[in-house]
Amino acid sequence: PDREAFVTLATNDPYAYGALILGQSLRNVTTTRKLAVLVTSQVTQPLRRQLNLVFDHIQQVDPLDSQDAAHLTLLARPELGITFSKLHCWTLTQYSKCVFLDADCLVLRNVDDLFEREELSAAPDVGWPDCFNSGVFVFRPSLETHKELLQCALTLGSFDGGDQGLLNTFFKDWPTKDMNRHLPFIYNMTSSMSYSYLPAYLFFRHDIRIVHFIGLGKPWLYTYHVRNGHLQPPQGLTSHHDEEFVKKWWSIFVSHIKPRLEQESGSLLYEL
Amino acid sequence: PDREAFVTLATNDPYAYGALILGQSLRNVTTTRKLAVLVTSQVTQPLRRQLNLVFDHIQQVDPLDSQDAAHLTLLARPELGITFSKLHCWTLTQYSKCVFLDADCLVLRNVDDLFEREELSAAPDVGWPDCFNSGVFVFRPSLETHKELLQCALTLGSFDGGDQGLLNTFFKDWPTKDMNRHLPFIYNMTSSMSYSYLPAYLFFRHDIRIVHFIGLGKPWLYTYHVRNGHLQPPQGLTSHHDEEFVKKWWSIFVSHIKPRLEQESGSLLYEL
Ligand SMILES: O=c1ccn([C@@H]2O[C@H](COP(=O)(O)OP(=O)(O)O)[C@@H](O)[C@H]2O)c(=O)[nH]1
Ligand SMILES: O=c1ccn([C@@H]2O[C@H](COP(=O)(O)OP(=O)(O)O)[C@@H](O)[C@H]2O)c(=O)[nH]1
Ligand SMILES: [Mn+2]
Ligand SMILES: [Mn+2]
Repeated sequence: PDREAFVTLATNDPYAYGALILGQSLRNVTTTRKLAVLVTSQVTQPLRRQLNLVFDHIQQVDPLDSQDAAHLTLLARPELGITFSKLHCWTLTQYSKCVFLDADCLVLRNVDDLFEREELSAAPDVGWPDCFNSGVFVFRPSLETHKELLQCALTLGSFDGGDQGLLNTFFKDWPTKDMNRHLPFIYNMTSSMSYSYLPAYLFFRHDIRIVHFIGLGKPWLYTYHVRNGHLQPPQGLTSHHDEEFVKKWWSIFVSHIKPRLEQESGSLLYEL
Repeated sequence: PDREAFVTLATNDPYAYGALILGQSLRNVTTTRKLAVLVTSQVTQPLRRQLNLVFDHIQQVDPLDSQDAAHLTLLARPELGITFSKLHCWTLTQYSKCVFLDADCLVLRNVDDLFEREELSAAPDVGWPDCFNSGVFVFRPSLETHKELLQCALTLGSFDGGDQGLLNTFFKDWPTKDMNRHLPFIYNMTSSMSYSYLPAYLFFRHDIRIVHFIGLGKPWLYTYHVRNGHLQPPQGLTSHHDEEFVKKWWSIFVSHIKPRLEQESGSLLYEL
């Protein structure tokens, strides 16, 4: 277990808040594994100090951008080229096996059993379920694989302009080869889908282990009123997330992160 | 191949039009298998005569309704209780293996290789991908299985009020047991999804073999102007289907079905 870690990524302060709550959610379910976070130089010192209180290991990496405006426009997410930075997680060779989690994930129940899986294990993407969603995946750090991934990025590129298109091209036997590499959807419940098959969602929702807040409506962009527990979606967005889960995210913020922030002086921290 | 068949279902005339175009699309890709259609008494004589020209076998069955208003309301599809009638496909024991296709499917390329699969093979549902979508599945007719399915309907019921919830309860090892029972998504491309992961859709769309027009916007509810090829979505619905595929549906209607209808006298046929 000492050589196994959960890994996430934050290239800026807003996503670093996501990483913080994610890391804390893993502590709350008493994981026995290490916690590591990749950051780029844009993440500020006050946030790094907070990350240090939750994570075992902060690794600075160079930002890597797909620069692929054409495909990202199709995805309506011009900002996601930067998710190529995720590929650096393969350089964490001090660990023998890792689980990558997007910073917009929230762990509801212990998921240490994920380390029984092999590279590359992931859950289906609801948009095109023969692709896996790259927000949660099991991998083996390896400089060799890292090099091949960067090579693949240069030669074949990503069909969606983000890390998910690239990883699906690289691990292209995922849809057909081995059932054990298909994680159950409850390990990466992409939250906006709750309404597209509501009966199934209600039937299986008690089993959900990881909620993944995909899309533009990240939990840290909601306005949360601590006093009355009222929640407002980000301006201009109709929320597709189940409010219960966004509230769970904020309740961890209030109980574990806010008190620590209040001991800090950096005014930036109060802007959230 | 003589003991293998594609099977569909129509409980009324609008869906019978769907079955007609589906059957013709299978003929157009020169399937070597038999075509069978289950109908209930509501399907009128003129439509049955048309079905007879395309299908090898018309089987009348009793309508079977889940009567489960509560779950169907969650699905926002109160009319789908009748899809329990689908369960009767297991009674077609003159065949050793079958592929069931919803009447709102359109076959674009030969899919006879589906008969290499075993019961129960199906593609993931995009709403909750650990469930299979019951619009396309491989099964083995068996009176025993038929009886067990009806028993399951009475005891456990369906978590969505339709056939899909029931079949997923009955074949509950589908998500974990055998990769060969996971059909590639291109064998049941649920059409409304084209926009939720557009880059993947554009990347894989040339490979699509079966389009499934899920939801309220069935192709036969569109208005198609034969003269200029113009297409209008059903009133009050913003179409989620790729118009190219709806046009393909209508082009089969115009080239193969309309000429035959024009030899009929029943005025009902011209209302479409
Ligand atoms: O500006 C960004 C965008 C993304 N990410 C990281 O890349 C992941 C994938 O991006 P996102 O979660 O926004 O994509 P989605 O899940 O909505 O497709 C995030 O969770 C972060 O870990 C980041 O650090 N900075
Ligand atoms: O009134 C109905 C509703 C459904 N069906 C049959 O049941 C299938 C499933 O229903 P539908 O395709 O409307 O469900 P969806 O795929 O939109 O969930 C149809 O394709 C038909 O074969 C039918 O015959 N009559
Ligand atoms: Mn994400
Ligand atoms: Mn259908």
